[in-house]
Amino acid sequence: MGDKLESLARAAFAPNGSAGPRTTIAVDAMGSDRAPRPEIEGAIQAARYGNARVLLVGRTEAIQAELANHPAAAELPIEIVQASEVISMDEKAAHAVRAKRDSSMRVGLRLVRDGTAQGFVTAGNTGAAMATAKMVLGALPGVDRPALAAVFPTTIPGRAAIMIDVGANVDSKPQNLEQFAVMGEIYSRSIFQNQRPRVGLLSIGEEESKGNDLTRQAYELLRRLPFNFVGNVEGRDLYNGKVDVIVCDGFVGNVALKISEGLVETVRSMLKESLEATLTRQMGFLLSRRAFADFKKRLDYTEYGGAPLLGIKGVVIVSHGSSNANAIKNAVRVAAEFAKSGINEKIAQELSRQNGVLTAPSD
Amino acid sequence: MGDKLESLARAAFAPNGSAGPRTTIAVDAMGSDRAPRPEIEGAIQAARYGNARVLLVGRTEAIQAELANHPAAAELPIEIVQASEVISMDEKAAHAVRAKRDSSMRVGLRLVRDGTAQGFVTAGNTGAAMATAKMVLGALPGVDRPALAAVFPTTIPGRAAIMIDVGANVDSKPQNLEQFAVMGEIYSRSIFQNQRPRVGLLSIGEEESKGNDLTRQAYELLRRLPFNFVGNVEGRDLYNGKVDVIVCDGFVGNVALKISEGLVETVRSMLKESLEATLTRQMGFLLSRRAFADFKKRLDYTEYGGAPLLGIKGVVIVSHGSSNANAIKNAVRVAAEFAKSGINEKIAQELSRQNGVLTAPSD
Repeated sequence: MGDKLESLARAAFAPNGSAGPRTTIAVDAMGSDRAPRPEIEGAIQAARYGNARVLLVGRTEAIQAELANHPAAAELPIEIVQASEVISMDEKAAHAVRAKRDSSMRVGLRLVRDGTAQGFVTAGNTGAAMATAKMVLGALPGVDRPALAAVFPTTIPGRAAIMIDVGANVDSKPQNLEQFAVMGEIYSRSIFQNQRPRVGLLSIGEEESKGNDLTRQAYELLRRLPFNFVGNVEGRDLYNGKVDVIVCDGFVGNVALKISEGLVETVRSMLKESLEATLTRQMGFLLSRRAFADFKKRLDYTEYGGAPLLGIKGVVIVSHGSSNANAIKNAVRVAAEFAKSGINEKIAQELSRQNGVLTAPSD
Repeated sequence: MGDKLESLARAAFAPNGSAGPRTTIAVDAMGSDRAPRPEIEGAIQAARYGNARVLLVGRTEAIQAELANHPAAAELPIEIVQASEVISMDEKAAHAVRAKRDSSMRVGLRLVRDGTAQGFVTAGNTGAAMATAKMVLGALPGVDRPALAAVFPTTIPGRAAIMIDVGANVDSKPQNLEQFAVMGEIYSRSIFQNQRPRVGLLSIGEEESKGNDLTRQAYELLRRLPFNFVGNVEGRDLYNGKVDVIVCDGFVGNVALKISEGLVETVRSMLKESLEATLTRQMGFLLSRRAFADFKKRLDYTEYGGAPLLGIKGVVIVSHGSSNANAIKNAVRVAAEFAKSGINEKIAQELSRQNGVLTAPSD
């Protein structure tokens, strides 16, 4: 595979005569629940819209078979990189890292490490993706624990909120939350162009004294950071646009994310049921169909593509296992934006600059 | 006030010649954000529908002034019990308990302790309600920490799920979660008539190994309990009817509750915005109005009235600070159902019966 990588690297960095994209994103073609279809369709869309050049990583035969359904793809900046192994959704992260040295995740992340690709997208096993990324790419200087950041829509049009961490770490220490805050703040500034992001600490009451041991200690650290810390926020503040960044332990953040997904599904199905009940309501539904489409889109997590793993030396976007082509396309777009934003350099700089302010790493 | 209590006690337990209700519920008239109006209107509705005889506890003048707007209330089984002090929403629980010996909460809970009332409803400061209830009534034998249980609607019509704890305890120990599970299971059996409630442990993955230190240790305790423990469940399972009881630490449960409230509000406002955008959509909205009313009702937490504080020697229902009359009416109904169900005796029996199985109390 060495030759293949070398030629890919040359292609990626050669002066680009065409107006095509220069950023190359590796996509784990074997990750999602319905792989490789959503990955390949998403890659085609991303390449077509000029979001990036895409390297599809996985079993060449499976990828080729799916690509054959899309003859137009041959004209697009898409290439295949062979990886013989696949990590399943229920595989333990430690096992996946140890045993599968030629997994699509591992190969994809190596492309990033070697500079062949500027980012990696996977809709596979989240735990394995994080563990493999930490091993292959390593953490940024000053980062004890990388964290997953998710984007939530808010009731304020065009404004999204970032929640960090949503599942990379459990049993976090106050110092970890402090670093999550720094990374989330930079994410909000760099990607969402918020000049002075409002950062809140997720707790169960607004007063400083409310919360648990972890949040009370983290509060003291966050208030000393040189940014716009607005104090404790509650669960309802995820969606009302009151803050731009919400900091929490990964267990709590993951529960929050899953509840939100579940509840949106619940609301959708209850409404559907109610609206199918009588003819008048069905008429009503038809007339308001466009509104429902708008609404669905605003709540649609696939629009945000995936959750970036922050604090890693490289760009890694983790998408939902149930991702469709649209989610993958957007994840590729987000990965390319990240690569161009220089966010990792900013995180490393900020953490080193604040070294006097930040508490010493504890693990 | 002794005489007043005595005469109330006599009235409550005297043979009841009329077909009126025998269960007496004390209602904190000064608790909610808009007190005493919702409390008094809710009490009137509850008394009218025969749910209970109601003792309105608080400042007599304020209660009388509001009752004057409802002349028909004079015919209903409603009485006033004077309490001179009010605990505010942002008051610290410890201060409220220590300093306000004649608060409406304290007086209301004393009515329960003395047997004058069979239950207490408050929409006031949750922390103060829990602390005061523990002090005035005490915990049931075998219960280390009482817990708040909330009811969530599910996509399966007529089926609700119970989450315990939603805010009474933070930094819970595995043994606390074990007791929450026992209490939640009995609640589901006694009040929701589930023969064999499915009990799940809230975590961030279904496998036994997933979660944090607390959930992994609690898993080992829960699997040994003689009931239908289905293992770890995720945030999305709150709403899909997969389980009847969801066990978690109060920090996580409170975040879950607040997120749900926030998201339902978000969905409602996004839909409204979309549906007001054009005339066609407005027409559509009018035609499907009945469906929206149905839908609102199914997601409406006020239908469930409030969260019972389980593990206390007595019946205490804590309602949301923003409760309206409907929520208070339902809380009074729930309190009366609890009082009749003998749930506390069942909890005490079960915990003592399982003494060999349950781990020793640790705090």
